[in-house]
Amino acid sequence: MIPATRSVKESYADTTHLVLPNDTNTMSNLFGGRLLEWLDINSAISAHRHCKRMVVTIAVNNVSFDRPIKLGDFVTIRSHVSRAFGTSMEIWSDVWVEDQQTGEKIPCNSAMYTFVAVDNAGQPSKVPDAVPETDVEKSRYDSALRRRQLRLIIAGKMKPEDATELKALFG
Amino acid sequence: MIPATRSVKESYADTTHLVLPNDTNTMSNLFGGRLLEWLDINSAISAHRHCKRMVVTIAVNNVSFDRPIKLGDFVTIRSHVSRAFGTSMEIWSDVWVEDQQTGEKIPCNSAMYTFVAVDNAGQPSKVPDAVPETDVEKSRYDSALRRRQLRLIIAGKMKPEDATELKALFG
Amino acid sequence: MIPATRSVKESYADTTHLVLPNDTNTMSNLFGGRLLEWLDINSAISAHRHCKRMVVTIAVNNVSFDRPIKLGDFVTIRSHVSRAFGTSMEIWSDVWVEDQQTGEKIPCNSAMYTFVAVDNAGQPSKVPDAVPETDVEKSRYDSALRRRQLRLIIAGKMKPEDATELKALFG
Amino acid sequence: MIPATRSVKESYADTTHLVLPNDTNTMSNLFGGRLLEWLDINSAISAHRHCKRMVVTIAVNNVSFDRPIKLGDFVTIRSHVSRAFGTSMEIWSDVWVEDQQTGEKIPCNSAMYTFVAVDNAGQPSKVPDAVPETDVEKSRYDSALRRRQLRLIIAGKMKPEDATELKALFG
Amino acid sequence: MIPATRSVKESYADTTHLVLPNDTNTMSNLFGGRLLEWLDINSAISAHRHCKRMVVTIAVNNVSFDRPIKLGDFVTIRSHVSRAFGTSMEIWSDVWVEDQQTGEKIPCNSAMYTFVAVDNAGQPSKVPDAVPETDVEKSRYDSALRRRQLRLIIAGKMKPEDATELKALFG
Amino acid sequence: MIPATRSVKESYADTTHLVLPNDTNTMSNLFGGRLLEWLDINSAISAHRHCKRMVVTIAVNNVSFDRPIKLGDFVTIRSHVSRAFGTSMEIWSDVWVEDQQTGEKIPCNSAMYTFVAVDNAGQPSKVPDAVPETDVEKSRYDSALRRRQLRLIIAGKMKPEDATELKALFG
Repeated sequence: MIPATRSVKESYADTTHLVLPNDTNTMSNLFGGRLLEWLDINSAISAHRHCKRMVVTIAVNNVSFDRPIKLGDFVTIRSHVSRAFGTSMEIWSDVWVEDQQTGEKIPCNSAMYTFVAVDNAGQPSKVPDAVPETDVEKSRYDSALRRRQLRLIIAGKMKPEDATELKALFG
Repeated sequence: MIPATRSVKESYADTTHLVLPNDTNTMSNLFGGRLLEWLDINSAISAHRHCKRMVVTIAVNNVSFDRPIKLGDFVTIRSHVSRAFGTSMEIWSDVWVEDQQTGEKIPCNSAMYTFVAVDNAGQPSKVPDAVPETDVEKSRYDSALRRRQLRLIIAGKMKPEDATELKALFG
Repeated sequence: MIPATRSVKESYADTTHLVLPNDTNTMSNLFGGRLLEWLDINSAISAHRHCKRMVVTIAVNNVSFDRPIKLGDFVTIRSHVSRAFGTSMEIWSDVWVEDQQTGEKIPCNSAMYTFVAVDNAGQPSKVPDAVPETDVEKSRYDSALRRRQLRLIIAGKMKPEDATELKALFG
Repeated sequence: MIPATRSVKESYADTTHLVLPNDTNTMSNLFGGRLLEWLDINSAISAHRHCKRMVVTIAVNNVSFDRPIKLGDFVTIRSHVSRAFGTSMEIWSDVWVEDQQTGEKIPCNSAMYTFVAVDNAGQPSKVPDAVPETDVEKSRYDSALRRRQLRLIIAGKMKPEDATELKALFG
Repeated sequence: MIPATRSVKESYADTTHLVLPNDTNTMSNLFGGRLLEWLDINSAISAHRHCKRMVVTIAVNNVSFDRPIKLGDFVTIRSHVSRAFGTSMEIWSDVWVEDQQTGEKIPCNSAMYTFVAVDNAGQPSKVPDAVPETDVEKSRYDSALRRRQLRLIIAGKMKPEDATELKALFG
Repeated sequence: MIPATRSVKESYADTTHLVLPNDTNTMSNLFGGRLLEWLDINSAISAHRHCKRMVVTIAVNNVSFDRPIKLGDFVTIRSHVSRAFGTSMEIWSDVWVEDQQTGEKIPCNSAMYTFVAVDNAGQPSKVPDAVPETDVEKSRYDSALRRRQLRLIIAGKMKPEDATELKALFG
């Protein structure tokens, strides 16, 4: 039985990739599409840990690539559910690159993907609410509603006047 | 020499993929990360056609996956520049799946990626303005400014009160 | 129901690939085997569009590689059915590389693959006749019979004295 | 120093692949493009063994796929130079599938690729003549000239009336 | 400057993989070679974190595969340096599979790889001693010497009579 | 019906790989994980040839990487069963790199993997005894028992005092 709530911390998923030639573009940097693929898989693992069901990517809300990642770099991705909405979940991922001399992990970019849980027939299935505990988790939980409204407006599935969170922001 | 403007139609890039086992998740559907990779590469080709320089993905603004794509499907991606902003370009991609009996192309989803043009030293480089001609191109050109403001706000690079386009929308 | 004929233009399939490190040999050129794989998939899409059935590669008639293709190049492949023969189809593909400064598409090579349509039991299945319309399509339609005879002779499935088209050519 | 001649047997190259899901089409058969890639690499190894220089694929003369190869099959490829022509070499490859109960190797298809040897500047470079010893090698050596004339005629690089071997065949 | 010692805990590296069709054998289980590849990369990351230099795999000491891992499973690998020997390091990796209903991580197998640190000229380079802290780390540190003697004897680089640790074990 | 014995020579499996960019680490050498994958597949083919059943990797006993293998090298792997133990088989693989000027094959490293034969229900299944004929085969047959005892002790499945072969070695 799926519980009514689950704490955010149970959904953390970590992975570290080594950037091999196979992953680079012609400037010897990690090419964007490969990072998007890694983010999708790590986010899916995190979404599954939250709902214990099959999950399907339904949207990439926002990803920004703030610095080039080089051939030979270690790329660490940490994902967690930021908020659940009935049958869907927003997954927040942070990406770091590791300084190879000092070991320092340098923040590189963030990404938010949305997944829906499906049952064996492929139908959307209710997921537990996500309970944030740390300050960072709470802040991401709060902003998730705003991002969701933005996404639905861009997708033409919500009218701007119904986006109460956004109206408050811009009004 | 890079011209001051270039028409949107010069940037069109088309590709068709056959979904092979290698591209599917455990439900035998195309997995999201693979489509994101295909979109990134086709968008990069389109961005290059507009500016004739090396291009780097700097953001994925929005991608929604509206229907599952199955093993054996043909996936057609058509990308074009929707608007240029100094050194960056928003690329709009449409994705269709082809009905294997009738050949009808069924719209599947859209995606918007942002690229920046760089010179050989990796520094941002001015791109031509994009000149839309068809109604669809014009409509995407217009809405690109709104998406750009959203993206910059989400990334913390613009204050909501400076997002004039969005204020008009929600105000 | 499969129609008796279908125009060649309905079978056109286009794809554009970016040559990544993963696709190159030790001289940083696209290696031949990768291009053959891309040609096979694009040709299969074209064959499917003609017959709306599963298709299986049965022969590569002729492919010549006339110029090296470099890391970072855009490779455009356009395929179409050139002629149908009962249950099989010859697919003609043209390959271009794009000049990255001018955008000019430079013809690079051509390839002819033969596919057979199969039903769900894997048995050969009748395909529509292909109706060429442009001069180029008509010329390729005409020469397809000659290539078919060559292929069957090389494969030991036709006696040279029965190859009427070739006898006329060499006689 | 490159010798003037080298026996065919020094160029033999063998490889065995296991057909994994990654290599199959939607009918769970090895897809043609993957076999073409394997053939290209094994042929290149054979060509290199003959000339001890970098080699570049310049043509696929003829490949026929006579029987489907299934997921889980062992595919054995054996390649050797069949004849050298100045700076180019025809490589003949035989493909077998292994019966998993009896171990019997079932002939599956043959393929002929043409390679050219290049020096460090990428210029064509003289290769040794190939000396056939067995009956099979001799027969392939003889027919290679005919295939070369066919290839050059199809590529528009030889006039039919100059193809003395073919005229004898069809005349 | 490389410190004389570094604690084992600084070398921990974690990764989680989702088993996709691409990773499976014909029984729909993760095939061994793919897991060996994942272990090699995760171990290399761990070795690098210990020595902050380029590292090269020099041996796989022992890997056992105790239970099949299925398509769709999440595979978590955690690696750490178990002991350093001058210029080489043994890396110990634990592998878990996650129960998809309960989230329980089920131990699956362990692996020990040996890496050597190299400088830019490719010459072996001194690494810090590894300092174990937990009981598990200490136990693995102790047994590492025994495994090293076994490995050197098998490789013919040590005489059995010099393997003091092993003599004590079997004597 | 599976015979009671089978000669070692029936299990020989050969493969040759060309090291492409896709296979290299950031030092342009073949990375260890890729070679481990190639060894696993070639060993599985050899194991299958011995027992004519599905086979599953259960252990990598020992692999040492004695010299770097470079981008563009030809890597030849030859595998054979060294000894059978009821339902399991040790497979010995030798790896050579080919000198590209002289064609000389330079021994590079060896690897021993253990496979178990399974029936359709996934249960271990009896395999024929392996009968060595050459001196090399006999020597590897003899030492296989020692390696098996080492492996079982390391895996905690045999007590050191029961390892009669090893006691003789170290005693």
